[in-house]
Amino acid sequence: MITKEETGKYLQQNKQRFLDELFELLRIPSVSADPKFKADVKKAAEFMKAKFEEAGAENVEVCETKGHPIVYADKIIDPNLPTVLVYGHYDVQPADPYELWESEPFNPVIKNDKIVARGSADDKGQMYIHVKAFEMMMKNGGVPCNIKFMIEGEEEVGSENLEVFIKENKEKLKADVIVISDTSMIANDHPSMAVSLKGLSYLEVEVTGPNRDLHSGVYGGAVANPINVLCRMIASLQDENKRVTIPGFYDKVLELTAEERAKMNEAPFDLGDFKKDLNIEDVEGEESYNTLERMGIRPTLDVNGIWGGYTGEGAKTVLPSKANAKISMRLVPDQNHYEISELFQKHFESIAPKSVKVKVKPHHGGMPYVTPTDTDSYKAAEKAFEKVWGKMPIPTREGGSIPIVSLFKDILGLDSILMGFGLNSDAIHSPNESFGVENYLKGIETVALFHQYFSELDRK
Amino acid sequence: MITKEETGKYLQQNKQRFLDELFELLRIPSVSADPKFKADVKKAAEFMKAKFEEAGAENVEVCETKGHPIVYADKIIDPNLPTVLVYGHYDVQPADPYELWESEPFNPVIKNDKIVARGSADDKGQMYIHVKAFEMMMKNGGVPCNIKFMIEGEEEVGSENLEVFIKENKEKLKADVIVISDTSMIANDHPSMAVSLKGLSYLEVEVTGPNRDLHSGVYGGAVANPINVLCRMIASLQDENKRVTIPGFYDKVLELTAEERAKMNEAPFDLGDFKKDLNIEDVEGEESYNTLERMGIRPTLDVNGIWGGYTGEGAKTVLPSKANAKISMRLVPDQNHYEISELFQKHFESIAPKSVKVKVKPHHGGMPYVTPTDTDSYKAAEKAFEKVWGKMPIPTREGGSIPIVSLFKDILGLDSILMGFGLNSDAIHSPNESFGVENYLKGIETVALFHQYFSELDRK
Repeated sequence: MITKEETGKYLQQNKQRFLDELFELLRIPSVSADPKFKADVKKAAEFMKAKFEEAGAENVEVCETKGHPIVYADKIIDPNLPTVLVYGHYDVQPADPYELWESEPFNPVIKNDKIVARGSADDKGQMYIHVKAFEMMMKNGGVPCNIKFMIEGEEEVGSENLEVFIKENKEKLKADVIVISDTSMIANDHPSMAVSLKGLSYLEVEVTGPNRDLHSGVYGGAVANPINVLCRMIASLQDENKRVTIPGFYDKVLELTAEERAKMNEAPFDLGDFKKDLNIEDVEGEESYNTLERMGIRPTLDVNGIWGGYTGEGAKTVLPSKANAKISMRLVPDQNHYEISELFQKHFESIAPKSVKVKVKPHHGGMPYVTPTDTDSYKAAEKAFEKVWGKMPIPTREGGSIPIVSLFKDILGLDSILMGFGLNSDAIHSPNESFGVENYLKGIETVALFHQYFSELDRK
Repeated sequence: MITKEETGKYLQQNKQRFLDELFELLRIPSVSADPKFKADVKKAAEFMKAKFEEAGAENVEVCETKGHPIVYADKIIDPNLPTVLVYGHYDVQPADPYELWESEPFNPVIKNDKIVARGSADDKGQMYIHVKAFEMMMKNGGVPCNIKFMIEGEEEVGSENLEVFIKENKEKLKADVIVISDTSMIANDHPSMAVSLKGLSYLEVEVTGPNRDLHSGVYGGAVANPINVLCRMIASLQDENKRVTIPGFYDKVLELTAEERAKMNEAPFDLGDFKKDLNIEDVEGEESYNTLERMGIRPTLDVNGIWGGYTGEGAKTVLPSKANAKISMRLVPDQNHYEISELFQKHFESIAPKSVKVKVKPHHGGMPYVTPTDTDSYKAAEKAFEKVWGKMPIPTREGGSIPIVSLFKDILGLDSILMGFGLNSDAIHSPNESFGVENYLKGIETVALFHQYFSELDRK
């Protein structure tokens, strides 16, 4: 069995190499959303395959899909021992706007003890923790239980092909629990584990007015301007209390009890620091809920992108033919993303004036998820965090989504333990994304100890 | 004196050359708004200089300004004769979106008897009419009155340097009337002359929320999304009756009498054809005014461009830091664009929630203008139209703006006669802009006869 002493020692000896390997992975711009990076995504998959083999994994395979490949690897030591399935992703969000990066997004640097690069936290850094924890166990008496790895390349675009993959490989993926490091902790001195994730419904809308761009002087005021109309429609999606106005949107929202709300509000949070960090004078959100609750337990609606008309230099007096927007909603238990996307589409089409035509295209979605906290696996994770970080992790509710997690439950019947080592200040999905060097290294220790504790607990 | 017979004869003999010369000018992408076309704008100015010289003009000069140059030329035959100052512009609107052009915007072609190219109607084709009319008069006994030409290269970006130029050259520009061909007629069988132009107030706004792009899951619903906020603010600029809500916006609007409204509604207009041409099911505009009135006599507000967040391929779950829009208002007598821009800025800043920061940057503007119709010059224009087009031109009120026209009145004390030969269907400022070959050629005749009639009338 591996001990804290051993993990600490091995870490010291291999620290620099662990960082070098991660940097090599971060240099590969594996942006899954943009077709022009297809070859790089493939390259990242091949990199993972090589590293699993070096670490001593078996049955390592780059599994082709209709989209980007999935990397599978395992180490089965005894069919009677419990099995952990590790899930992560090697693809990353687009890096733009590039001009806001202080260093090259795909040329990692260490700044203020943090690794700065696209994907450093989401999810290459957190995912690679598991590969190095695996190596660490293999080099210190071997793994204490069976381990399987499933690392995909389409998490940032909806994991559609992973869904197909798990449906077709239920036997191969048989396990007792899934472990994922793709969430965050409250702070390095306040370890926490996410026990719920939001679902996601992401759509794209197009509003078409006249069949061509028009002169805003000749036609302005007499013909519906699709940008003005789109703004009106978007504005109407939330009322003055910032509640979403789509009929039925809140019907299946699980309201927390006063106790549950009180408990989640015990998490350390300072609104002043929060506003200071974002340089905003005031927050804005659903009436009668505080910031932590808006982020953790309330469904939300955000425009992620909007474009239309002339956006170049100078002034063009055009009344454009089209206006577009990307709109997403974060969902909470028990909202269903298929239902919500349908409600959105119906509503959005219903509020379109006769003066325009509207197209609504659903992008991708995912169901919300809640982790049970009374399991051996959750307790093992708690114990590992406590051992490495010195405190029991606080259970938190995350605003982020990992759509595939609810599918793991539905299709494989497995719960997921969310051992996140990032921080909200890591700026994932933003310019200058970063991941603490300490978080990376301590994460490796934590994961190795989790496997140890889990295999012991389970044998009790 | 030149007669209809002479103009018709000369036209037949030189028709092809007149077209070739215009095509040559249209091939120069003189886009004034975009710095990368600066050299082409200069090239267009040099082209004009050469053509004025060939046509027999004197004192031809490319006058440098802080921006793009102004081309001046004249032919003074007798200080005691009346003087016509011709104004036009050789710069054009940006051609994008390029993908919507059926032929190259800067490679003119003739399709359905129309010249298709950016600038064909606005304003190269209409402006060049005056150069060829001048040549025609010179080759047929000389001009009957003094003529001065002032052709600028910044009309599409606000004519700021032209304003400086006319202030500094009042003596040089001394004249009895200004003639401009930069508007449109109702139809080729319904000649008309614009007797009023709208003013313009053009601004750019920037809404800033958090200091960086955020993950829409982690922060969504808890932090103001600048796109949602911008949409809300833009939507609030018009009420449910499509009236602009900016306090004071309508204070100085000149309401037409029932008679005036009745008269302007005599202009042939078919709402069915209008909607069919634009492929829209319904029009939209200010309550209690019809389409002609909305276009001609009511002030309007249009978003000309909007952008923010992720607009690339696929889906990015970002809560952006900024959102931007270009917004313009068309003004009617007696609105003042400086006042309106200030009212807009004050109002827009006042409606911004504390959760965002707002920047408002005025681009350029212009005052509305009304042409007196009881003058010799207007009557001469009417007569010339009648002679060439077979009907008296109907006076119309234009939705478009030529900001400089009101400045001509203020600074030079001169009224402008708007002899427009284009059609609304010319799609100026849009892809596939076009100008009828017949409109171009008949325009040359009409202008030549105008000078003849004007010089006669004036001597009466």
